[in-house]
Amino acid sequence: MEDLQQLRQKNLETIFYPKSVAIVGTNKVKGTVPHDILDSILKADFNGIVYPVSPREKSIKGIKAYKYVVDVPDDIDLAILVFPSSVCHMALEQCGQKGIKSVIIISAGYKEVGEAGLKREQQLVAIARKYDMSFIGPNCLGVINTVPETNLNASFAREMPEQGNIGFLSQSGALCTAVLDYASAKHIGFSKFISFGNKADISEIDILYYLMNDEETKVILMYLEEVSDGKALMKAARDVIEKSGKPILIIKSGRTDEGASAAASHTGSLTGKDEICDAAFEQAGIIRCNNIEEMFNKAIAFAYQPPPKSEKIAIITNAGGPGVLTTDAAISTGLKLAKFSEETTSILKKALPATANINNPVDVIGDARSDRYLAAINAAFDDADVAGVFVILTPQSMTDIDTIAADVARIAEGQSKPIYTSFMGQKDVASGIDILQTHKIPHYILPESMCTAFQVVYHFNQNVKTKVRHLSALDNIQVELARKLMDKVHANGRSYIPEVETIEVLETYGLPVPQGKLASTADEAVKIAEEIGYPVVLKVVSDDIIHKSEVKGVELNLGSAKEVKDAWERIHSNVKKAMPDASITGLYVIRMIKGSEEIILGIKRDPSFGPVLMFGLGGIFVEIFKDVSFGVAPLSRDEAMHMLEQTRAFKILKGTRGRNPRDMDSIVDALLRLGQLAVDFPEIEELDINPLFVLDKGQGSVIGDARMILTKTV
Amino acid sequence: MEDLQQLRQKNLETIFYPKSVAIVGTNKVKGTVPHDILDSILKADFNGIVYPVSPREKSIKGIKAYKYVVDVPDDIDLAILVFPSSVCHMALEQCGQKGIKSVIIISAGYKEVGEAGLKREQQLVAIARKYDMSFIGPNCLGVINTVPETNLNASFAREMPEQGNIGFLSQSGALCTAVLDYASAKHIGFSKFISFGNKADISEIDILYYLMNDEETKVILMYLEEVSDGKALMKAARDVIEKSGKPILIIKSGRTDEGASAAASHTGSLTGKDEICDAAFEQAGIIRCNNIEEMFNKAIAFAYQPPPKSEKIAIITNAGGPGVLTTDAAISTGLKLAKFSEETTSILKKALPATANINNPVDVIGDARSDRYLAAINAAFDDADVAGVFVILTPQSMTDIDTIAADVARIAEGQSKPIYTSFMGQKDVASGIDILQTHKIPHYILPESMCTAFQVVYHFNQNVKTKVRHLSALDNIQVELARKLMDKVHANGRSYIPEVETIEVLETYGLPVPQGKLASTADEAVKIAEEIGYPVVLKVVSDDIIHKSEVKGVELNLGSAKEVKDAWERIHSNVKKAMPDASITGLYVIRMIKGSEEIILGIKRDPSFGPVLMFGLGGIFVEIFKDVSFGVAPLSRDEAMHMLEQTRAFKILKGTRGRNPRDMDSIVDALLRLGQLAVDFPEIEELDINPLFVLDKGQGSVIGDARMILTKTV
Repeated sequence: MEDLQQLRQKNLETIFYPKSVAIVGTNKVKGTVPHDILDSILKADFNGIVYPVSPREKSIKGIKAYKYVVDVPDDIDLAILVFPSSVCHMALEQCGQKGIKSVIIISAGYKEVGEAGLKREQQLVAIARKYDMSFIGPNCLGVINTVPETNLNASFAREMPEQGNIGFLSQSGALCTAVLDYASAKHIGFSKFISFGNKADISEIDILYYLMNDEETKVILMYLEEVSDGKALMKAARDVIEKSGKPILIIKSGRTDEGASAAASHTGSLTGKDEICDAAFEQAGIIRCNNIEEMFNKAIAFAYQPPPKSEKIAIITNAGGPGVLTTDAAISTGLKLAKFSEETTSILKKALPATANINNPVDVIGDARSDRYLAAINAAFDDADVAGVFVILTPQSMTDIDTIAADVARIAEGQSKPIYTSFMGQKDVASGIDILQTHKIPHYILPESMCTAFQVVYHFNQNVKTKVRHLSALDNIQVELARKLMDKVHANGRSYIPEVETIEVLETYGLPVPQGKLASTADEAVKIAEEIGYPVVLKVVSDDIIHKSEVKGVELNLGSAKEVKDAWERIHSNVKKAMPDASITGLYVIRMIKGSEEIILGIKRDPSFGPVLMFGLGGIFVEIFKDVSFGVAPLSRDEAMHMLEQTRAFKILKGTRGRNPRDMDSIVDALLRLGQLAVDFPEIEELDINPLFVLDKGQGSVIGDARMILTKTV
Repeated sequence: MEDLQQLRQKNLETIFYPKSVAIVGTNKVKGTVPHDILDSILKADFNGIVYPVSPREKSIKGIKAYKYVVDVPDDIDLAILVFPSSVCHMALEQCGQKGIKSVIIISAGYKEVGEAGLKREQQLVAIARKYDMSFIGPNCLGVINTVPETNLNASFAREMPEQGNIGFLSQSGALCTAVLDYASAKHIGFSKFISFGNKADISEIDILYYLMNDEETKVILMYLEEVSDGKALMKAARDVIEKSGKPILIIKSGRTDEGASAAASHTGSLTGKDEICDAAFEQAGIIRCNNIEEMFNKAIAFAYQPPPKSEKIAIITNAGGPGVLTTDAAISTGLKLAKFSEETTSILKKALPATANINNPVDVIGDARSDRYLAAINAAFDDADVAGVFVILTPQSMTDIDTIAADVARIAEGQSKPIYTSFMGQKDVASGIDILQTHKIPHYILPESMCTAFQVVYHFNQNVKTKVRHLSALDNIQVELARKLMDKVHANGRSYIPEVETIEVLETYGLPVPQGKLASTADEAVKIAEEIGYPVVLKVVSDDIIHKSEVKGVELNLGSAKEVKDAWERIHSNVKKAMPDASITGLYVIRMIKGSEEIILGIKRDPSFGPVLMFGLGGIFVEIFKDVSFGVAPLSRDEAMHMLEQTRAFKILKGTRGRNPRDMDSIVDALLRLGQLAVDFPEIEELDINPLFVLDKGQGSVIGDARMILTKTV
């Protein structure tokens, strides 16, 4: 498997940097894919040799054509297959015979059309394996490499994009054309551009690793409809960020159930729960975006400008209103207004007219020309408290828009602090914006987008990129004993495992199980109670009873032998009344916990990300407010703590307004142990600890109840 | 006052539709405001006579100029003052002498520059009063009326905007230029365009009323930095919506404290709490927007297309990915995907290729040309379940973008269902988008904006426009008794009024005060307890003690005479220990309430909106989650109920998962009575009922504690 991945990396290099390309299945019919691909390559001025392969034509566009790929007399680095899917496998076989290792399969008619297509796709994979080939596709738009020494537009995109340092890969081919068009108007350049289609062989994971090492790429963008292997995606993202420091921005569609089902009918993708995807992306450092606009707004901030050192900005504007709106947006996004030094304000006072506002936000006033903007920007750059400058412009009659744009671009060069711009309006400011975009100065229509972009770059550089992930080994884990217990509970084919047995398993992983024992008689119950100390709780134990409270099978706060005996009788008679046929194994006697906060911990298995941990404060917080957080197992200690911090309930655990701080370390520890258990025992489909009684800081926590659901043994 | 308002309406009519205009203080210096205003009027081809008034020039731009406005031999409808503020008042005086009633004062140098400017501004107002004149400004950009029979561009905007049915008014002049430029590029037309500046005379309220009756205006947009009279704004908005059904969209900047302080340094505006502004706008039916883009995205939906009859949409796309993203956005916004009838799907099946998706979202596939789009749109329009159609387009090589745009425009004409579009990309789709915008088809860059616009129009037409507001009279209100009590508590100059006296006042307004009385001795306390029934609560009453619990001055759940007596002793000894010098009036004996939900009600006075009511669930909900809602008094019953619905805590009151539904009617009633009290007694600065014990549905509620803060008697 490792070999296969290495092979793909090697073959990807040739996909992007081929010296010779065969277009297999091309023709002379303009407006068709087989023709347009050849046309794209020629138009983009490919720096190598193109060999048209066409069973019918002797030449296409003045270039000699070959009947079969094996007929080409020279070596071929990359084959692009555009034959119909009915014959594509034969062409691929010939590519293998010819010794071609790198292939792009543009042709559609595979997995996306159902069962027959899926078979054809598997056939392609088998052929590739036979000849050590790797391919992108099928059902894709192709690949672009803008590096001048290659200049490869092996796609049916209308135009070659500008060169740049953004790598883009997409599961949807159609979206690619919209992205290229959007980027072209804004002078956004790309290093590599990949439509990976059905990813039958080379996947988005392989491409991520390729772009990690690609020197031309500084920022990686992706559009995904399906996370087929969430674990692998997380690992790849972590590797990329750790080893290269490159940010990864992903649009993952199918947020809502309806969207997911539209995606399913579109590509046959299966998606898991969206909140889990959110959590997993954040855990892996991936920046999730909702649409193309948002993605590029953030991408240009990463690609064009140095990262800010703090969240303190200076705003320079020629109109008060927009200055206020930008301030609102900045504060709402979590940024701060830099506080100017006396030196800065005195410089501004000299440079600007008396009516100007020399505090932050600086208002250079409506009749400002470039000189005033320059003076204000320079002063802001020089102020130690300023980590970045936002330039706002409204088109007034005196405003020399293009000059200001050019001057901003000039002044930004070589700066160690970022500068972002928003020229408000559209028609009058269009040429100014074009100057900014040509010179790679981030420009934003909305102050909100500008502030969010700044915040994201800051957060990524301060917190994500530098994060070191420790997966510390847990002590006190008895895997073999757990295995024995699991085999036992699994043996009789049950999938629902009730409290006592679940707690036995949890104990082997060092989770804080309650003091208590199963009692068969009232006297035994009293004896256990005296051992562990009053007050105690009695709970009915029965394979037939799932909801113990509903049959009145639980009695709390029993303070004496008499109370235990009375409760014993009451529970038996209650259960007999509610479920006469239920067979009672006995009653569970545990120590009563008081003065604690009740929380809920859980394990759920996601089809894409595997075992996922859930945390929430008990009662109405989970029931009514859905105030829960998720984390993909195994967790680092920081990640587990972050799960707590993400909930609104965190404030309660932290202790505030006369409430005691609770033992959060014990919750973190429980999450880590649960995560390990979930990883070690894939048969655990679900597990709930509800409640976990969390005591005051330093006092630990105790499980109140637990149950698990196992995969049915087949 | 009523007369003044009527006068302003009459004079506004002449401001917008003058037959003759004097530009008072104009000159020949290009690039200066006095010159450019004259230039704007002439360039826009004004349908009336312009009289330049200039002390120095004999003629300007070939038009005869007059030294003073009184020298003009003909009648003048509108004077536009562009003199420096030092002499402007003399020009205004002359306008009055000349009998001119309508004036625009462009000149700056008034309130916005401080005390001296404010005085000059007051001078202008006094002159206007003397001559029954009305004026817009000072410190504004001017006024535009696009109606062809007038064609007035009395502003220093670079270009006359297109004619349209959107009225726009702005407190910020600089923002106007950005708005005009933005709108011009998108073919967004205006009916009236007003920069109202310092609003020393004619205010945004007057203009709102004017636009209410203006037949050219269908949608009203406003940019505000300061709500100087919140009550009047709410009343005007309600009048406009009720009488004309026109939506009002407002950007109110200064959301954050920092933004508000930037606004303050910019215009000297004072802003109240932003959450209260949010609540007040919603209550009045005003649609609050965060930025220009958002405002116009919503405005064009109102202005261009019929309102949807339901929230069910059909999505037509030529690319799966964007279809999924749009579906996600729609569901997240609260829209639904329409369910096609069998007839519709069979029509689509015939019209579209086999690979197309004939369910909603409809995918007409990448190679679709206009015919396929048309067939799909028509089928969707004809489906009874579809209330609106979203057309998504990505630029593929086969896509005839401009034809599709023109066909969409044609097909939309005369339709009773709205159609919105999103042509994704930028450069390739630019001409198509221009065709759409020219034909008043709403176009959106983001699916999110498209869905939000649809949702806002739907909500406004279904819920806001049709809402009838009943301010029902409340029974059982003893105003005179309340007056007497308030005079008493107010008499000794106290501002903090403790529990017992506050509760006495609340009782006169029919609020659910607890059963209980003040006791001076332990025996008296027992007697009261026996009267009202056990269990009871004892609380210390003392002018010196604000926090009763902190001095251990409260004892709960006392079930017998003995317990009451013991508690009596304990409280006295606790208080003596904690605050030896406190003088104790007695102990308050009230009935103990059990099994209730604790909520908090309050009155706060906002500088702009007056008395505001606050509602929140007690405990951590208010303390930690700030889960509160606001409403401006007086409230209608619906508005009070809406305050409950807006909180997350509403789910708890409604009863869910085994919880009893609580008596929400009694909360609503309490809010209405509190609102009335706040309106009747302006000296109440703050009042808190904390907690109000809310019992099960039908059982009412009881005040647990209350206190108020009065304005200090001066």
